[in-house]
Amino acid sequence: MKFIIKKDILFENLNHASKAISSKVLSPILTGINFDLTEEGLYLEASDNEISIRAFIPKEDITEIIELGSVVIGARDIIETLRTIPDSDANITIEVLDGDKMLINEEFSGCNVKIDGMSSNEYPNLDMTLSKQPIIISNLLFKNIVNQTVFAAASNDSKINNPAFKGINFKINNNLLEVTATNTYRLSKKMINLDVNIENDINITIPSRNILEFSKLLSEDDNVLEMHILESKVLFKYNNIIFLSSILNASYPNVSIPETFEIEIECNFNDLYNKITRASIYSADREKNTIKLQFLKDEMWIRSNSPGRGDVNEKIDVICDKELEVAFSAKYMCDAIKSFGQDKVKLCFNYDIYCPIVIKSSKDESLIQFISKIIPS
Amino acid sequence: MKFIIKKDILFENLNHASKAISSKVLSPILTGINFDLTEEGLYLEASDNEISIRAFIPKEDITEIIELGSVVIGARDIIETLRTIPDSDANITIEVLDGDKMLINEEFSGCNVKIDGMSSNEYPNLDMTLSKQPIIISNLLFKNIVNQTVFAAASNDSKINNPAFKGINFKINNNLLEVTATNTYRLSKKMINLDVNIENDINITIPSRNILEFSKLLSEDDNVLEMHILESKVLFKYNNIIFLSSILNASYPNVSIPETFEIEIECNFNDLYNKITRASIYSADREKNTIKLQFLKDEMWIRSNSPGRGDVNEKIDVICDKELEVAFSAKYMCDAIKSFGQDKVKLCFNYDIYCPIVIKSSKDESLIQFISKIIPS
Repeated sequence: MKFIIKKDILFENLNHASKAISSKVLSPILTGINFDLTEEGLYLEASDNEISIRAFIPKEDITEIIELGSVVIGARDIIETLRTIPDSDANITIEVLDGDKMLINEEFSGCNVKIDGMSSNEYPNLDMTLSKQPIIISNLLFKNIVNQTVFAAASNDSKINNPAFKGINFKINNNLLEVTATNTYRLSKKMINLDVNIENDINITIPSRNILEFSKLLSEDDNVLEMHILESKVLFKYNNIIFLSSILNASYPNVSIPETFEIEIECNFNDLYNKITRASIYSADREKNTIKLQFLKDEMWIRSNSPGRGDVNEKIDVICDKELEVAFSAKYMCDAIKSFGQDKVKLCFNYDIYCPIVIKSSKDESLIQFISKIIPS
Repeated sequence: MKFIIKKDILFENLNHASKAISSKVLSPILTGINFDLTEEGLYLEASDNEISIRAFIPKEDITEIIELGSVVIGARDIIETLRTIPDSDANITIEVLDGDKMLINEEFSGCNVKIDGMSSNEYPNLDMTLSKQPIIISNLLFKNIVNQTVFAAASNDSKINNPAFKGINFKINNNLLEVTATNTYRLSKKMINLDVNIENDINITIPSRNILEFSKLLSEDDNVLEMHILESKVLFKYNNIIFLSSILNASYPNVSIPETFEIEIECNFNDLYNKITRASIYSADREKNTIKLQFLKDEMWIRSNSPGRGDVNEKIDVICDKELEVAFSAKYMCDAIKSFGQDKVKLCFNYDIYCPIVIKSSKDESLIQFISKIIPS
């Protein structure tokens, strides 16, 4: 293998591929990136068994292809080496010697590095065959869907029983895409009408960590991505990147959305956010971050009280002739109201203690957030 | 105690004082800031026994003083509370109730917080009496002195025997200020001619952590600070802040600077820095970060070799008819050459294996850096 390429092009694509490498994987070959130089261009593959990424640099973006071939090179070493070459436009000559050693030369920086690699024969075969009927979706919309939902999923180190809660659920019926994340104490749901009908219903749950890593690869340009759903995995194709993720093999519960509410008020986001944050400092239960909301005639009070530390009692004027007192996690509420990115949010309540608080926004009706009430012990 | 003050003024000064608070201190009173409202203004004191800071807000900067008094309030609670008030110009009313509870009110954000505090009577008495003959020095110069030396001191968790090496040594003879930091494997020395003669010779060592915390309080404006050296402590006065630090009670070794060198070459900083960084990736000894420098006729080679990972062999053209091979820590060399902030640096060598590598710059003759050679084992 021998080729010449601009530093920036190689560096960017190595960075993309390296997102699949996990420090937890013990197999030495999986600390490397599999270089495969073909007549079409250079494929760069990385995997941690959970996620696999293949970045492709077409031959038009390679300054010169001198000899085809393949090799596996430690991702960290080559990325750190390229980082020390200051000129992003520099032409780098990459050559494989003695079967698995990579020589990296660049004239102006005087770079002359030899990296010991491994044979591509030892690299696992990643099946990245795409499906015939991908779902096509805007990358900006997809990024937004992830940002508005993923925080509600159970964290990776949570002790929750159902592994499905560590993922995000994608459900498609006809042209309705519903994306849900929950840790059972809070839930985010995003509903999008796709431009086309999908023939077969879809119901898959993708691990949150994987979807977050993929989301980081999406640029801010207006573009589209393809989602290919297969038997036991999902593949995303975006620009010249193919991203493969495992799917969680556990059924995702159905959640019904309450339609009517006894109290429904609209608040200024900043005012509500600052008051809840302030109250959270003096939460009685710091682990659950519990604060209280109390409705008295046309007043909504935000309260907290931590004996020995302090208390908060603050009022927001509202139009409401009912009375109610509820406790909830200030952190969950802040995450939920922030996710809309709007000036105003709607808080909706029912008296039933087991009925969650629902947060909506009249400007973004595609999103709905639930938070469980905390029942006084 | 009752007064009205702009949020920003109180917030900034609380932040300054809170730098003295350490999470390691077990005494609850030392998690607090001692508020003392006098006729001259508001004093805010904090301490972790190692460092004490007193910030002063003169009465002209207080919107209204209604009642004098004092109280100790948890630093984190009050700073977090003020952070939730968005308008930096907001007038905040602070009032002490029931002896040690602080009520914080601000109209436009609806802030209504009561913080449980402690009595000022329980707060330790911090003696911040200044000396009569302070050393006056530019804050920008002082910040520069610290940045150019402190990194060479032994880290706080190092197992070094002499505690003096965890500090920075300030020595004054007549008008010459010498500042030294070393961990015995590397050494930084900064030499400054003060504008005035100091009557009594000075030789004190200040813990690095303390000097770094003080340095963070210095702004980028052109201003001066006062350094007051007392029996067992040093006090810095800067604007309305007094910063007290303990002194390390251990003698600091004298170091003689080699005057003549067998090899002396000047290099471009960027080129040298990038090549050394590149070589350090393939250091044979990753803990010591060892790389090699080899002089052959008019060539300086930078080399490293990590069996199984890779090697670097890169050349810089120099004018030098001597031969030499030395090994050293790439990290120490990078820190040293970076500290000059110059385009060019001078590397100076003697053949003696125990004679350190000396780094200088013709543009900043006040600074000198030493690095020990690593002796092949």
